[in-house]
Amino acid sequence: MKIEVRFTPAMIESNSDVRERTAVVIDTLRATSTIVAALMAGAREVIPVATAADAAAVAHRLGTERTLLCGERASLRIEGFDLGNSPAEYTSEVVGGKTLVLTTTNGTQALLKAQHARRVLCGALLNARAVAEEIVAGGEDDVVLICAGTYGRFSFEDTLAAGAIVEAVAEFATSSVALDDGARASVVLFDRERHDLRSALARGDHGAALAELGFAHDLDFCARLDIESAPVPALIGSTIRLAEVRESR
Amino acid sequence: MKIEVRFTPAMIESNSDVRERTAVVIDTLRATSTIVAALMAGAREVIPVATAADAAAVAHRLGTERTLLCGERASLRIEGFDLGNSPAEYTSEVVGGKTLVLTTTNGTQALLKAQHARRVLCGALLNARAVAEEIVAGGEDDVVLICAGTYGRFSFEDTLAAGAIVEAVAEFATSSVALDDGARASVVLFDRERHDLRSALARGDHGAALAELGFAHDLDFCARLDIESAPVPALIGSTIRLAEVRESR
Repeated sequence: MKIEVRFTPAMIESNSDVRERTAVVIDTLRATSTIVAALMAGAREVIPVATAADAAAVAHRLGTERTLLCGERASLRIEGFDLGNSPAEYTSEVVGGKTLVLTTTNGTQALLKAQHARRVLCGALLNARAVAEEIVAGGEDDVVLICAGTYGRFSFEDTLAAGAIVEAVAEFATSSVALDDGARASVVLFDRERHDLRSALARGDHGAALAELGFAHDLDFCARLDIESAPVPALIGSTIRLAEVRESR
Repeated sequence: MKIEVRFTPAMIESNSDVRERTAVVIDTLRATSTIVAALMAGAREVIPVATAADAAAVAHRLGTERTLLCGERASLRIEGFDLGNSPAEYTSEVVGGKTLVLTTTNGTQALLKAQHARRVLCGALLNARAVAEEIVAGGEDDVVLICAGTYGRFSFEDTLAAGAIVEAVAEFATSSVALDDGARASVVLFDRERHDLRSALARGDHGAALAELGFAHDLDFCARLDIESAPVPALIGSTIRLAEVRESR
């Protein structure tokens, strides 16, 4: 199997880059970490949408009772929305049983680029090994990891999660695993930072900006590698739920 | 001063990403290594152009006597051209005193993205410290290193040269140097591979492909770090010549 890592969504040039493959979307700070937190806390599903207006329209159509409107712009909760993009907000009391309509700056773009893949999973440091297990259990398709990046730029923390996933896939896979340059670089960077991922996140451009905005506790949360019973969110149709393969075992 | 590294030309989104800065274009395999080799061998200048047809037109206008038509597509010399993109071809016997009209697949695109910078330099492993000296001697502008990449993808070998340059700038600069995520990652990757750059180039996707095409000797050439009297090519107007600052010292 082949594993490629693209450092920004724009590095997916066409649908043929993902077709017949498993795509893993990574936005360590914070969209995919938040989605992991939401499903762990018992949210029914997450519906990712591109714009705040779309989010409000979708939430309206679904009815307010079982739906929460979630998302950020410039890292802050969108005005009038129920929740921002801080995983700390996604507790079972708040999101349990709910449908979450989520719009974020970078993560949404990456999900859009991934949508024509055979399978689309959401990865983060929190669930790196679980994502790798899911990839292998799902038949060892070729894999492309799509880092959300930050405003079109390379993002250190996404690459660390990519490296953690690539390393675990190489460990679990029964077939031989061929890495592209991006995957090789991700593994080197992860290996260099694995012993203090919290510091690595704080040194990164986006992590430093989040800490300044008062979200240092999100770095604590998102820097944890392979938390217990980490869910693997999967985009199925237009909705993110728990991935099917591991669920059905 | 700030130093940023962009892993592909497409990661330069607008001219404001380079304006008022020094841009360093890096195409380790092989365009910027070839340009370094050409100027070392006494070529008068290199004129980079986008297409093979443009190259032929420019060379025709300049007259055949002092001009050579150079470039590759799919790594091979363009039919009817005098030289390909292998630095081994650029000997003083062949290129001394000549104007070289050069078109390459990835390097040209990166030069186009850089052209609105205050200064545009050409970097490679061969001249990494010389480029860093030139940046510092030129006034310690903010710097953006633009990796040519390979067909829009991240390229390991460009990142190694970027890391070597960033590390040397940080060493030489008198002002404090702030790295972005891309620059930080480049330094880590360079540091990991510095003791055997030849192997690192051979492991990279593009290096492996070149070796299969019979260009393993180009990997030997381009993997050398900081060769003696390495020139710093600079794009001035539409022409690449020796950079002015160090020349005038």
